[in-house]
Amino acid sequence: MEFKKILEQHSEESWNKYIPTLSIDCVIFSFHETTLQVLTIKMKGQERWGLPGGYVRKDENVDDAAIRILKDRTGTENIYLQQFYTFGNLNRSESAFEEYDDKLWNKQRFVSIGYYALAEYTNVKLVIDQYSTACEWKSIAELPEFMMDHRTIFDRALLTLREQLNNHPIGYNLLPEKFTMPELQKLYEAILEKKLNRGNFYRKILRYDILTKLEESRKGGAHKAPDLYSFDLEKYNAALKEGLKGSW
Amino acid sequence: MEFKKILEQHSEESWNKYIPTLSIDCVIFSFHETTLQVLTIKMKGQERWGLPGGYVRKDENVDDAAIRILKDRTGTENIYLQQFYTFGNLNRSESAFEEYDDKLWNKQRFVSIGYYALAEYTNVKLVIDQYSTACEWKSIAELPEFMMDHRTIFDRALLTLREQLNNHPIGYNLLPEKFTMPELQKLYEAILEKKLNRGNFYRKILRYDILTKLEESRKGGAHKAPDLYSFDLEKYNAALKEGLKGSW
Repeated sequence: MEFKKILEQHSEESWNKYIPTLSIDCVIFSFHETTLQVLTIKMKGQERWGLPGGYVRKDENVDDAAIRILKDRTGTENIYLQQFYTFGNLNRSESAFEEYDDKLWNKQRFVSIGYYALAEYTNVKLVIDQYSTACEWKSIAELPEFMMDHRTIFDRALLTLREQLNNHPIGYNLLPEKFTMPELQKLYEAILEKKLNRGNFYRKILRYDILTKLEESRKGGAHKAPDLYSFDLEKYNAALKEGLKGSW
Repeated sequence: MEFKKILEQHSEESWNKYIPTLSIDCVIFSFHETTLQVLTIKMKGQERWGLPGGYVRKDENVDDAAIRILKDRTGTENIYLQQFYTFGNLNRSESAFEEYDDKLWNKQRFVSIGYYALAEYTNVKLVIDQYSTACEWKSIAELPEFMMDHRTIFDRALLTLREQLNNHPIGYNLLPEKFTMPELQKLYEAILEKKLNRGNFYRKILRYDILTKLEESRKGGAHKAPDLYSFDLEKYNAALKEGLKGSW
């Protein structure tokens, strides 16, 4: 089994290079064709899909490790990245390596720090490394079965997005610079996992006074060209600081 | 130096008992005499105050370790506990043990998982263990200098309380069962670190319809006895689920 050899070969190097016990898993979101997507990989020797991840070097801050792992997988470090939860249950990952030697690096107990990232879809170049056979965006509405506890990690990341929708720049980081109001509404609906009334959504969003209506409109398509908007970053950031719904 | 001996004696036991690299720090809040308080300890051999913490046993989930550490320090496990952030910068803790042997357990690099806890002041019995000389509540407005990066950990915990004020049961867990409206307002002011207008606060809080006005009032004092309230837990939880400010 070729993958087993690769892991065994790298095990000693990993013991020397990384701090023990700790791993990082990344939930990388993007928004494409009106659906919220998440980056998934297929590791060699695993039947199920998983989230991209890695370890922390002995001479590296944990946040810097997350940036490095994200860059290795997406080709860019210019991505909004936020730690959201650390997953520390017994046997959350060890079982994936049952048939291996107990000294194998990957078979140790790992507590994993979860980071979510918000990527602009077109900015990302997906990278398949030596440990994986595939790296793909998947719609969050049609996720495959995940390995280990990666479904739990994903669910928690989505819950965090939802809780932070009003005080973190989530729309700004997931949408292209110019977007239509229906696209913005679809994004909110995807994160909140519920349908929103069009009129109410428009009224609320416009009342926050965080958007700039552009002179241009979206070309192409059979219908009337829809208006384009962009975020007024100064006003958006000020509103986020207070919480979009107004503060106490 | 007596403390050095204690650490050295326990070092081997710690290496055997706990998973490496990981520690837990607890920011335990309570509300007493109209001020928000945090539990601080003074470790033997340290000049500065710190937050209570500990390590994760090899056969223990991380969340269970946090509950155990909290119980060891406060005598109760019936306390609202929430993980909020993991602190992983290089040299965040190692420098406190510079004059010790490099193999000493405590001198290793530790990445620390932060938990905040919300305690009802009168429920807590403070415990001074063999590693500490003092364990005290301190008003968050008058904090002493902290050891290591414990000030950073505290600041992040308070920021989290503020962000979660509208969707976690923070008021319920910090106040006694019966409280007055001025006490509730003081709690919100302490968490938000700003003065609130009395009339606006009353109107907003009453509009959420999460309080029950009790038949009794607070006895004693020279002034008119103030009305007592308690949370209507069913309504409060439903409101938190949607976010107190109303949902999208």
